[in-house]
Amino acid sequence: MSRFSEPQHPDFRRLNTSISFDVRLWPQDIAQSRAHARMLAAVGVVSEGDLRALLDGLDEVGRELAEGRFAVRPDDEDIHMAIERRLTEIAGPAGGRLQTARSRNDQEATGVALYTRAAAARAADAVGALMEALLARAQEHLAVALPGYTHLQRAQPVYLSHHLLAYFWMLSRDRARFGFAAAEAGRMPLGAGALAGVSFETDRRMVAAELGFAEVVPNSIDAVSNRDFVIDYLSAAATCATHLSRLGSELVIWSSEEFRFCELPDAWSSGSSIMPQKKNPDAAELLRAKAPRIAAHLSAMHGVMHALPLTYNKDMQEDKEHLFDAVDTLELCLAAARGMIEGVRFDVERMREAASDEMIAATDIADLLVGEGVPFREAHGIVAGLVRLAVESGRTLSQLAPGELEQAAGEAFAGAEGLARYRQALSQSAWLESKVSEGGTALARVREQIALAEGMVGEGGGAAAGR
Amino acid sequence: MSRFSEPQHPDFRRLNTSISFDVRLWPQDIAQSRAHARMLAAVGVVSEGDLRALLDGLDEVGRELAEGRFAVRPDDEDIHMAIERRLTEIAGPAGGRLQTARSRNDQEATGVALYTRAAAARAADAVGALMEALLARAQEHLAVALPGYTHLQRAQPVYLSHHLLAYFWMLSRDRARFGFAAAEAGRMPLGAGALAGVSFETDRRMVAAELGFAEVVPNSIDAVSNRDFVIDYLSAAATCATHLSRLGSELVIWSSEEFRFCELPDAWSSGSSIMPQKKNPDAAELLRAKAPRIAAHLSAMHGVMHALPLTYNKDMQEDKEHLFDAVDTLELCLAAARGMIEGVRFDVERMREAASDEMIAATDIADLLVGEGVPFREAHGIVAGLVRLAVESGRTLSQLAPGELEQAAGEAFAGAEGLARYRQALSQSAWLESKVSEGGTALARVREQIALAEGMVGEGGGAAAGR
Amino acid sequence: MSRFSEPQHPDFRRLNTSISFDVRLWPQDIAQSRAHARMLAAVGVVSEGDLRALLDGLDEVGRELAEGRFAVRPDDEDIHMAIERRLTEIAGPAGGRLQTARSRNDQEATGVALYTRAAAARAADAVGALMEALLARAQEHLAVALPGYTHLQRAQPVYLSHHLLAYFWMLSRDRARFGFAAAEAGRMPLGAGALAGVSFETDRRMVAAELGFAEVVPNSIDAVSNRDFVIDYLSAAATCATHLSRLGSELVIWSSEEFRFCELPDAWSSGSSIMPQKKNPDAAELLRAKAPRIAAHLSAMHGVMHALPLTYNKDMQEDKEHLFDAVDTLELCLAAARGMIEGVRFDVERMREAASDEMIAATDIADLLVGEGVPFREAHGIVAGLVRLAVESGRTLSQLAPGELEQAAGEAFAGAEGLARYRQALSQSAWLESKVSEGGTALARVREQIALAEGMVGEGGGAAAGR
Amino acid sequence: MSRFSEPQHPDFRRLNTSISFDVRLWPQDIAQSRAHARMLAAVGVVSEGDLRALLDGLDEVGRELAEGRFAVRPDDEDIHMAIERRLTEIAGPAGGRLQTARSRNDQEATGVALYTRAAAARAADAVGALMEALLARAQEHLAVALPGYTHLQRAQPVYLSHHLLAYFWMLSRDRARFGFAAAEAGRMPLGAGALAGVSFETDRRMVAAELGFAEVVPNSIDAVSNRDFVIDYLSAAATCATHLSRLGSELVIWSSEEFRFCELPDAWSSGSSIMPQKKNPDAAELLRAKAPRIAAHLSAMHGVMHALPLTYNKDMQEDKEHLFDAVDTLELCLAAARGMIEGVRFDVERMREAASDEMIAATDIADLLVGEGVPFREAHGIVAGLVRLAVESGRTLSQLAPGELEQAAGEAFAGAEGLARYRQALSQSAWLESKVSEGGTALARVREQIALAEGMVGEGGGAAAGR
Repeated sequence: MSRFSEPQHPDFRRLNTSISFDVRLWPQDIAQSRAHARMLAAVGVVSEGDLRALLDGLDEVGRELAEGRFAVRPDDEDIHMAIERRLTEIAGPAGGRLQTARSRNDQEATGVALYTRAAAARAADAVGALMEALLARAQEHLAVALPGYTHLQRAQPVYLSHHLLAYFWMLSRDRARFGFAAAEAGRMPLGAGALAGVSFETDRRMVAAELGFAEVVPNSIDAVSNRDFVIDYLSAAATCATHLSRLGSELVIWSSEEFRFCELPDAWSSGSSIMPQKKNPDAAELLRAKAPRIAAHLSAMHGVMHALPLTYNKDMQEDKEHLFDAVDTLELCLAAARGMIEGVRFDVERMREAASDEMIAATDIADLLVGEGVPFREAHGIVAGLVRLAVESGRTLSQLAPGELEQAAGEAFAGAEGLARYRQALSQSAWLESKVSEGGTALARVREQIALAEGMVGEGGGAAAGR
Repeated sequence: MSRFSEPQHPDFRRLNTSISFDVRLWPQDIAQSRAHARMLAAVGVVSEGDLRALLDGLDEVGRELAEGRFAVRPDDEDIHMAIERRLTEIAGPAGGRLQTARSRNDQEATGVALYTRAAAARAADAVGALMEALLARAQEHLAVALPGYTHLQRAQPVYLSHHLLAYFWMLSRDRARFGFAAAEAGRMPLGAGALAGVSFETDRRMVAAELGFAEVVPNSIDAVSNRDFVIDYLSAAATCATHLSRLGSELVIWSSEEFRFCELPDAWSSGSSIMPQKKNPDAAELLRAKAPRIAAHLSAMHGVMHALPLTYNKDMQEDKEHLFDAVDTLELCLAAARGMIEGVRFDVERMREAASDEMIAATDIADLLVGEGVPFREAHGIVAGLVRLAVESGRTLSQLAPGELEQAAGEAFAGAEGLARYRQALSQSAWLESKVSEGGTALARVREQIALAEGMVGEGGGAAAGR
Repeated sequence: MSRFSEPQHPDFRRLNTSISFDVRLWPQDIAQSRAHARMLAAVGVVSEGDLRALLDGLDEVGRELAEGRFAVRPDDEDIHMAIERRLTEIAGPAGGRLQTARSRNDQEATGVALYTRAAAARAADAVGALMEALLARAQEHLAVALPGYTHLQRAQPVYLSHHLLAYFWMLSRDRARFGFAAAEAGRMPLGAGALAGVSFETDRRMVAAELGFAEVVPNSIDAVSNRDFVIDYLSAAATCATHLSRLGSELVIWSSEEFRFCELPDAWSSGSSIMPQKKNPDAAELLRAKAPRIAAHLSAMHGVMHALPLTYNKDMQEDKEHLFDAVDTLELCLAAARGMIEGVRFDVERMREAASDEMIAATDIADLLVGEGVPFREAHGIVAGLVRLAVESGRTLSQLAPGELEQAAGEAFAGAEGLARYRQALSQSAWLESKVSEGGTALARVREQIALAEGMVGEGGGAAAGR
Repeated sequence: MSRFSEPQHPDFRRLNTSISFDVRLWPQDIAQSRAHARMLAAVGVVSEGDLRALLDGLDEVGRELAEGRFAVRPDDEDIHMAIERRLTEIAGPAGGRLQTARSRNDQEATGVALYTRAAAARAADAVGALMEALLARAQEHLAVALPGYTHLQRAQPVYLSHHLLAYFWMLSRDRARFGFAAAEAGRMPLGAGALAGVSFETDRRMVAAELGFAEVVPNSIDAVSNRDFVIDYLSAAATCATHLSRLGSELVIWSSEEFRFCELPDAWSSGSSIMPQKKNPDAAELLRAKAPRIAAHLSAMHGVMHALPLTYNKDMQEDKEHLFDAVDTLELCLAAARGMIEGVRFDVERMREAASDEMIAATDIADLLVGEGVPFREAHGIVAGLVRLAVESGRTLSQLAPGELEQAAGEAFAGAEGLARYRQALSQSAWLESKVSEGGTALARVREQIALAEGMVGEGGGAAAGR
């Protein structure tokens, strides 16, 4: 019997019911119900017979769900109530005892926490797999020169391995963020009841241990009011997706006819419905386009929680759709990024050619002058003058006449020796191999990085934290 | 034959394919194909026989879709290609001629524009229905006093009708916004081809007329690059949802035991799974929680379009899911708001009692002093002193002694006449009926407003603009 | 005298005080106070002598503010109180009468509405100026071919004029949006008092007329609860900024060494502190980067208003900083966009060369086949085969042998005539001039567009609506 | 000499120049320059004499800045260039040598990292201080009962200490998040040069050690492309601000006349300009309103970084204003929250009265039935029936007649003993003290929590990680 005398309005039911999306939480619900039932028996709240009936019943409900045989009823507001309803049909009165010492508030929070913890661990693994793919391609293209860009202007040449490893390190931070999120989802809300705790001396740590939670939430009000862990996942996902959007953006630019630094595999490209010659980097574009979507889920969850008084408010039901779509989207993006990285063909000739653009040696020439004792700013001014002279007269830097050099730079490039020094600075490998500082693009330094990266891949990183 | 030699990777297909969500655009796709076919025949690009085959075929495809008999194939990337594929199966070679003088780029933009225009018109109508519901409840509770709040502190009493009409005016602006969005979706992209126009002297205005577009987009590049109308819809929806979140918030607060200004109907309330006494305003809470969701879709679409070079980029495929979910969510929220407004029971006794709190007469007493020639700021200071005296001594304003009044306010409240004036100012209806300025809460002014509102409801407002 | 016995905490003062940013509203505050004073005199609430004192005093306060002589006091919480305080110092007791029949709630809303209306009109004008600049450059580069891109892949050639005009039309929609925002800010809140109206028979329409408002807000509660017009401005600004981010993005890409389609003027470029050869498109990059900033202000304002019960809440003080920064940022971006458009040098040779890439004729060749009666999809398949053949054998389309053509396309390209047709389709101007549909890139169509655009620029568009 | 022949446009300068806001980074810039100079001397790139000149010069520049004597020049684009310019004026040619082996790209990233690390540590400390304030108030109000709410409906009584501690635990997670952000800002970019590393065998670890960085960024491209740490700070700040918005919201609701659970101190309240009786919780409202602002900064930074190709792009200059405003806003909010928590007066009588509402005993009565062996769902139904009976007949639960009880609940409440059990369940402390589960509200459990919290406050938490 309910205290209500009127049935729910159909529109209210549509607005209120969550089973269409929270059905995805059934494995988490079954798992926590099993653990809860065992604990109730252990502390003597339900009998061994009831426990057997509950576990058998939950097994059967789980099978029905796994096999797609579970029939949802119109009254099944959410997956938790649906499972309890079905369990009672199967297990009889014992089924009704399962809800002892818990409420939907702590049950729902626990289901979402279990889901989030697993999703964060999966994300950390998928990020790790992408890191490995990047590392493999870097090892394969150790000494391929291409221009490094700032402001999308050619700036200084770097090795492709070095460029690819930049993404490796970005992703290593993402993995740590997912590790953090998994740890934050590692405190169990269950046992908080509706908000105040329950009227039984339950053993929450026993339940937590079975479910793999590292701790129990120490305050029952916080347990049912909190969705921080969802936000932590979304935050990690938004940053990771933003990294992937940078990768996607570069793949799009590099695939253009004008750059032609790479060609995406047919398996990751689309044709045009009307232009037969087109090969479109759709997957790379979607890597870009999905980042605002995930960031928007994060932003929405901050909005949902904004200014909510304690404890549980129905608003918090919104956590699930934002989370689920972010999880699905991110996992697909990570798979796509990995597929593209593994399959992309780099046009090393085009890259080398672009990297041999003399203009990008200008910094090195300035450094040369610094080595001769010219203060940096003055050296920079001299070389800017040479560049301007070359640009305005339509020549390259190596086409400048010795007299012009001497006039602009004085002693430094005068005489045969000075000129040789200048020419040497203009030859490409010098520019690359001169970057000898720790973390620089000189090959020896890249090899150091690769060794570091290999160690990190082995570790398993954040994934471990999430389990 | 395709220029590709390798099949699409399954993950790419999952990422790339849109038919799972854009299937919803089938009526728009059929409609535009019919209009396009008629135009092609009118300008002589397809024969009358082909036209007949195309129209019959499209009819049949439409029936299959309407009746749920349409079988999607794994290769059907989106609804447009699926319909074309099926059409060709039915209509034979004629089917292949339908894509003449158009491309998926302009076709997709046109489908979304048609959908958006209709959705904006529906939203304007639903907003109008909610306005009518508010107006009806205002008429019904014309002279019920309740406290008006600023900072959630009782400030000045108002009539419930006046309070409800505040929402009416908010919503009237929303209706105008949806009218604007519908107009912005009223320019037809079709005929732009892939991006440059098409190699046929087509008659775009004929197509536009059949589809109800007011204009054709004047630049083919803009036609396929633009999704502003989606953003316009989302923007109107976000503001409307934010208005509803304010309504939801008030319903939640008013339903609390402490306020008890209203009781939501059982048909729009939930019980608790564990606390038998609870009657929870879930629907009102969800009105709150859905606003950040819709605002996030808007924010995501700004993000998707951010920094995209012209013309079409695959990123723009993201328009649909953000739009569709916003449409569904908003329509459900508008229905729920209307249902709650129609069914909510106001506790007019509680309201009147709260409105008779003497403290909220303080402004009127200050105004009284102003009427006596006391400068406003001074009057304000005098009354603040009376309030402080009352609060600190635990008395109401009418319990202050004549001597205390005279000491604080001087002449103004001195003598029998002054005292009578003071007492009069403290009696409740005086406070309400004194607000005689245009737009104020005095009954005569509220009646003016109601007349204005009745006229506006009749108009039909923005909805008209959207059709 | 205040009802408070304790001074404000310094941190509270810092959090609460708005004068550091709302000082910008002083002209609006002086203007509305002048109008309010005149009305109070007209309806007999203040004497002519007091009116004179108020107007003279407001003049003096205005001069002090304009000339930077106004001394803010620590107690001046906001600009409205500061001006009133100073006015009272100057005008004596009359100053205290100015606050009669208004409150800070309606006064603040009115100040923000006046500011927003003017800002929207300014934005519409600045957008109009940018439209003119684009139109001028389009006229100047009427017949310069460049590739149109989809997915950043060369798709079909277009004229630069056509491409530039695409931005013209985007901006014309922005101008309409600012017109809408200006109209929404065109209803006057003043006269609503704290929330319930005021105890005087004021003449709100007289005040509205003096301040240029088209209407008065018809409900006093709505008048002080509403900030929709701020959101309308931010929404228009966010979409406009997103358009500018697309322009910025193209300028960055076109400025790269690989594209080299344009060179930004030195006046709008930066050098590098370390790389002397660099010329960086910083302004174009900032056009990109400012769009998320403005979109975030919009998102924040939706968040601020989220779930606020009626009427005024202090939260709404946040409206100003979001608005002001958006106004400043947008105006600077519009000026920068105009400066760059006016000054950018297009490398028409590079563009023409890129546009003559034969691959982008593929659609035209398919259209040719359609003209021969081949169904579109089949034609598309044939040409895709030719493209694949060319790509795989490293040849251009015109290097394919007659036999290969015949084998792939059958009759269509067979014989001398067929071959001639094929060759003709491969010559560039054919591809451009074949796009004869309304809104297409054929020169005659672009000239139509220019005529349309000229008419629109003349109109003044949304700016008029905003005044 | 520059390669540019035209001066910057004034609007470009306004758009491009950052010194108006990045001047705040001067201490970080001086610190890193000192460390960089010492390292250059240590590896022999600058002489000891030059080092002395540099350090003395930097000291002088620092003094000028600290004392407000530093004169910014129109050409000083950012604080880094301004300091270098001034240094060269003071130190002569040696000043020009400081830029050796670094560029503005790594210098700027390092300045922001240093700033972020310190800000994260400060935030962790301020969060810690607020945790202590909450703990102190909890200890002070250990056994004060108030209703716990779900859906803003009274649900179950809890102790005020328990409620306050819920915020303690939320904040403890914030502190961990700031610790994470501080650690992420703990890798030094300096030494990456423009993007590729530098042409000198520098000692980055020496610099890192002096500046307190735990590590050096292992890849020079990543070093200048990365702003993750800014996003990590903003993410922690957004969640923390959202927590504060919940606290603010409760203070607003509790301060209402209808709840009257607390009174904010005068030092943290505002009066009304027009309503003398008002005491407004402005600070609490601003706690609410600032959360969307900080969340919007986060959202903007995701937007700024979205789809940026590597390496440095000017877009990234936007990092600073978003970060700085978030830091200032959050620090002020944390101070305000602490001030309010320390000063708020709880009306324990009102709370106790509200907590004694019999309806919120319903769950306990159901639990009682469960203890008698009635399955939970059935017990729930029985009690719902009692509630409905009481509500509909306008009685409290204890006013129900024995016969009614027996009819509804059967044996359980029959007879003298059953009735006594029922009555006992209705007496308030029973409901509170029955929540004996770990983390529940029973006093013994709250004392456990307090002990746990005391230990955590001692730790210093995340702050340590950030240093």
